[in-house]
Amino acid sequence: MNPSTPFQSLILAAGMGTRMRSDTIKVLHPLLGTPLIGHVTRAALDAGAARVVPILGHQREQVEAWLRPQSYADAIHPAFQDEQLGTAHAVACGLPALDADIPYTLILSGDVPNLDAETLISMVNDAASAGCDLAVMTAILKDPASYGRIIRSAQGRLNAIVEFKDATEDQRAITEINAGIYLARTSFLLDAIPAIMAAGTDNAQNEYYLTDLVALAAKNERAIAWPVATPELVQGVNDRLDLARATAFVRRRTLERWMRAGVTLIDPDRTTIEPSATLEPDVTLEPDVTICGSSHIARGAYIEQGCRITDSHVGPGARLLAYSYLTDARVDQNASIGPFVHLRPGADIGENCKVGNFVEIKKTRLDKGAKASHLTYLGDAHVGQNANVGAGTITCNYDGQNKHRTTIGEGAFIGSNTALVAPIAIGDGAYVGAGSTLTDDVPPRALGIARGRQRNIEDWADPTPE
Amino acid sequence: MNPSTPFQSLILAAGMGTRMRSDTIKVLHPLLGTPLIGHVTRAALDAGAARVVPILGHQREQVEAWLRPQSYADAIHPAFQDEQLGTAHAVACGLPALDADIPYTLILSGDVPNLDAETLISMVNDAASAGCDLAVMTAILKDPASYGRIIRSAQGRLNAIVEFKDATEDQRAITEINAGIYLARTSFLLDAIPAIMAAGTDNAQNEYYLTDLVALAAKNERAIAWPVATPELVQGVNDRLDLARATAFVRRRTLERWMRAGVTLIDPDRTTIEPSATLEPDVTLEPDVTICGSSHIARGAYIEQGCRITDSHVGPGARLLAYSYLTDARVDQNASIGPFVHLRPGADIGENCKVGNFVEIKKTRLDKGAKASHLTYLGDAHVGQNANVGAGTITCNYDGQNKHRTTIGEGAFIGSNTALVAPIAIGDGAYVGAGSTLTDDVPPRALGIARGRQRNIEDWADPTPE
Amino acid sequence: MNPSTPFQSLILAAGMGTRMRSDTIKVLHPLLGTPLIGHVTRAALDAGAARVVPILGHQREQVEAWLRPQSYADAIHPAFQDEQLGTAHAVACGLPALDADIPYTLILSGDVPNLDAETLISMVNDAASAGCDLAVMTAILKDPASYGRIIRSAQGRLNAIVEFKDATEDQRAITEINAGIYLARTSFLLDAIPAIMAAGTDNAQNEYYLTDLVALAAKNERAIAWPVATPELVQGVNDRLDLARATAFVRRRTLERWMRAGVTLIDPDRTTIEPSATLEPDVTLEPDVTICGSSHIARGAYIEQGCRITDSHVGPGARLLAYSYLTDARVDQNASIGPFVHLRPGADIGENCKVGNFVEIKKTRLDKGAKASHLTYLGDAHVGQNANVGAGTITCNYDGQNKHRTTIGEGAFIGSNTALVAPIAIGDGAYVGAGSTLTDDVPPRALGIARGRQRNIEDWADPTPE
Repeated sequence: MNPSTPFQSLILAAGMGTRMRSDTIKVLHPLLGTPLIGHVTRAALDAGAARVVPILGHQREQVEAWLRPQSYADAIHPAFQDEQLGTAHAVACGLPALDADIPYTLILSGDVPNLDAETLISMVNDAASAGCDLAVMTAILKDPASYGRIIRSAQGRLNAIVEFKDATEDQRAITEINAGIYLARTSFLLDAIPAIMAAGTDNAQNEYYLTDLVALAAKNERAIAWPVATPELVQGVNDRLDLARATAFVRRRTLERWMRAGVTLIDPDRTTIEPSATLEPDVTLEPDVTICGSSHIARGAYIEQGCRITDSHVGPGARLLAYSYLTDARVDQNASIGPFVHLRPGADIGENCKVGNFVEIKKTRLDKGAKASHLTYLGDAHVGQNANVGAGTITCNYDGQNKHRTTIGEGAFIGSNTALVAPIAIGDGAYVGAGSTLTDDVPPRALGIARGRQRNIEDWADPTPE
Repeated sequence: MNPSTPFQSLILAAGMGTRMRSDTIKVLHPLLGTPLIGHVTRAALDAGAARVVPILGHQREQVEAWLRPQSYADAIHPAFQDEQLGTAHAVACGLPALDADIPYTLILSGDVPNLDAETLISMVNDAASAGCDLAVMTAILKDPASYGRIIRSAQGRLNAIVEFKDATEDQRAITEINAGIYLARTSFLLDAIPAIMAAGTDNAQNEYYLTDLVALAAKNERAIAWPVATPELVQGVNDRLDLARATAFVRRRTLERWMRAGVTLIDPDRTTIEPSATLEPDVTLEPDVTICGSSHIARGAYIEQGCRITDSHVGPGARLLAYSYLTDARVDQNASIGPFVHLRPGADIGENCKVGNFVEIKKTRLDKGAKASHLTYLGDAHVGQNANVGAGTITCNYDGQNKHRTTIGEGAFIGSNTALVAPIAIGDGAYVGAGSTLTDDVPPRALGIARGRQRNIEDWADPTPE
Repeated sequence: MNPSTPFQSLILAAGMGTRMRSDTIKVLHPLLGTPLIGHVTRAALDAGAARVVPILGHQREQVEAWLRPQSYADAIHPAFQDEQLGTAHAVACGLPALDADIPYTLILSGDVPNLDAETLISMVNDAASAGCDLAVMTAILKDPASYGRIIRSAQGRLNAIVEFKDATEDQRAITEINAGIYLARTSFLLDAIPAIMAAGTDNAQNEYYLTDLVALAAKNERAIAWPVATPELVQGVNDRLDLARATAFVRRRTLERWMRAGVTLIDPDRTTIEPSATLEPDVTLEPDVTICGSSHIARGAYIEQGCRITDSHVGPGARLLAYSYLTDARVDQNASIGPFVHLRPGADIGENCKVGNFVEIKKTRLDKGAKASHLTYLGDAHVGQNANVGAGTITCNYDGQNKHRTTIGEGAFIGSNTALVAPIAIGDGAYVGAGSTLTDDVPPRALGIARGRQRNIEDWADPTPE
């Protein structure tokens, strides 16, 4: 679906958000790996916004620093609100950054992260076809509490928004409320906001309110109310409880998408998939699995409970046993990993490989069919096809100053409890005796061994029983 | 409770289930360790079905392959539906496999896994005592959506099922819907199904519908509607969302049974017990514990968070610390395991033993009071009573071709960071020096040691400070 | 908030609780780390109770043994009920332990653990200002089931409590029920209870009922009903399902308090914080984190999924990667721990330290900037500033009889796969060669090494390919 008319977007993002009780500005708090401002910006761009103007204030440098490296940074044109004088003032600060030739302007809130592109497109399309100056997003609430009430005309047009404190009993009975999201004709906005600012403030908070737009548009019968499909979409984040609720909403929406696409989630209430990750059909995720960042899980992979996968690729038919922890790693098809495995950046596990319990791998390639089954650390290494790395093997890759590489040849067999002092190369088909500490290369098909000779000393134990 | 009359069961299980978006037929998708078809079959048999006729189609070989090794395989008499021509056609395919002498036939759906034996027995008993030809299981739904509506006579008899698209407004207001489960007098079924088939299809899908049975039975006032206690019982599985819902329902039902029996679940929403596992009173399960297969947990055992126990026995008073992963293992009374322990098949941990963090054990018996507390791999071994296996001990049980056994005697003390190259026997009361790699047996009460002599090289470090 | 009048408390705690199906008396079952009786006692004391009289019966020794070491033990004056003859009889057993000069007596149930101090203070204050003899705590239930119904006068006073079985249809329609918690004027109680006992029992169970107090107080129009804010507060625990529900309620209440205070919980439904633990703002807890006992988590700490922290201190800005298991340990600011780390009692990790995967630490101090990154056991040790402990290092602290200490100097470098046989000291800036087993001290800046010389045996492998 595409919007039927070009639009741009303003995002209110200047407030500190004191109820978060945080040293960090509210819009930078992460929700499933992305700050709130990122969710809102992404929704606007996905809906087709030609440019996005975030209005920044508190911690503007940090917000800009986050926005700058995003792939969509070119579409972002920040504006700044130095003093917090109300929502209309915030919009006024953004007006110079708007493109007057783009017919519509969508005003979003940086702390309303659940809105999706589809909803925004619908609103843009409906408002454009209605030919109105202003569309106000509304929600129908069971308990409208102290939200501003939507007053419609007999024809259903938007007449006014009445604040709760000013509302009559009859008005308070209205369950349609102002969600604080607006779509304005850009030309209308460019006229109306200066008019609101010029009129001055006439309220206790001494602030300029965006809701005054409604009166101006309604005067000409050019305002509409646009009710959103479900109130959760416009749920704002004011404190950490709200943040947890919004997280749950986005999490659930993401999970349902993947379930419909053929992913089995044993317990969706105990599964987390960040929106940036992708999965193929016939993947199964057991409970407590977390998939973050740009991870991709291919068809038929089975991920046991408690795995945490970040920016990693899991190949078709791979099996991750419980409590595998992957960061920036790769597991090829039909490989088996875990339980209790730590794949660090650059771990690259080939087809049919097996990596077993209490193994840590970093910047290391295992070729097809290689095995490292127990209690092992492989760093800065290459392990050849079908090589077998015994229990307790450690690549001594660090000499206190530099990192060095270890090479283990195809079909090599590394005995248990072995230290390989890098740089070192174990040849194809070579053997390393258990318990060895090797500092020199082992030629192909040779046995490398380095250990003390066994002595038995009889009657060592105290003859008197305990 | 037993059924008051003999009955047999047909199970519709031929469809692919395209909304699952899977390479696997729907009825083979697992729900808490057992495929859907297994849950339905088990419920029919537990309710007393004398024979069960699954109607198979897509992937029939795989379904048969799953059914064949089950303990109840003798009662299963599969029939085959090569083309999918509707539910009546499916039943027609199963008729030859029925026993005409069994008075009632229960028609179940392979994708309705939540029905339990008690519910089926109630239905059989009520229908038999009503002397009807056909009982249709129904459900009362808050939102009956587009399900077929149940039309009852003034006396409460079942008059008809009206499909939603054919229903009047008044009929659509009916909240009792057809759940798609039928109990038919066998003689009636054997007459009626051929009649339906002979009548041909007269609908858009060109299919033969089982609901036509109702008209035939109702004609003689011999049909009843049998509402189920709770709609979740007849919830069908059409996609992975449904599968997750059904899993949650069966999971919760299983958990409530164990809580009533005296098991403490700190958080039932974060606990999984497969229906095949058993527990005794005063067991405590912390969150994120998963108990699978034929596991048994004895009285007073305490299982910390994140343990995953499959086909294993945990003895009375045993304590499993967090993240213990057991498969086909045994832990005797008052033993302590974990955290971060992997007990693989054949691990057999004796009374009062202690197995600590980062220890893997396979095909190994620890006798009473033995300890392996840290960073150890024991494979193909026997550890005697009160022996102490030091940190970093590894049994080198694999020489690249064969596995060999390690024996550690009663009261032996294995120093840390030791490799025991099997086959090897450490005698009763013997000591092994830390850091040794042993290849020969150590006699009882002797000290076995094998390591290089320490040299200190003075002034090795660069004298200039970094 | 403080109570406006002094009061004391009786807690009914003598019953076995057969529906728990446990060998342990009901009030000793733990809820988030504290037995039920502890929650009730704590609420009474926090509300300002001057003395608390638990009425004990079954397993009284165990209950007393639990109460004795509590910080508030001086305020506890147990009374004993040898036979279970009803709630009035239980209170009668407690009368001698009351202080007649304390004007009010609050009668609590040891199996109603959710009541908080604020609620109790409100009840005391309202009853005191009403000047009544008896206040009965009530709850408004959607489904009042078979609870006793509250009969109020036209003025809203409490006239009577009618048991469900004795209630008329009209009375059964009342949704306000008796919650079984009473506040009595002490002088009234001291008169009324003996009167109830003297009147004898006149019911099927042959028990003396506390509800008879109501008739006595209502006679003089001196009884009030005091509805609680939410029914969950008075939810009783009768079986393990109730226990799980009460646990969820207290858990959720605790979490909401911390979220309001500025703690981010990614998924509150998957987080556990025992009420005794404390956190600072800008802490983040990922799912499946459990924080127990007296733990404290300082500002800005980030705790990844599945960590389990008991009686431990986590410093500001520290990061605990997934599956870190801490007991009675300390992690200083900006240190990084995990994944898969076990910090046992006495582990004391300094500022900026790094403790990596599969490392166990016990009774060991790591000074600022020290590292132990992989597969290590440190017990009874001290590691100097910026020292680097290589992969697979094991302190051999136990000789089979005693524990000995290991000292690693500032800036020392311990090569991988090393065993340090304690007692031993590695000097400042010293090196230990990989694969060494050291038994003697290494001087500062020296290299200590102990390993076999490497031999390579050519053509060891079978020349014929497999």
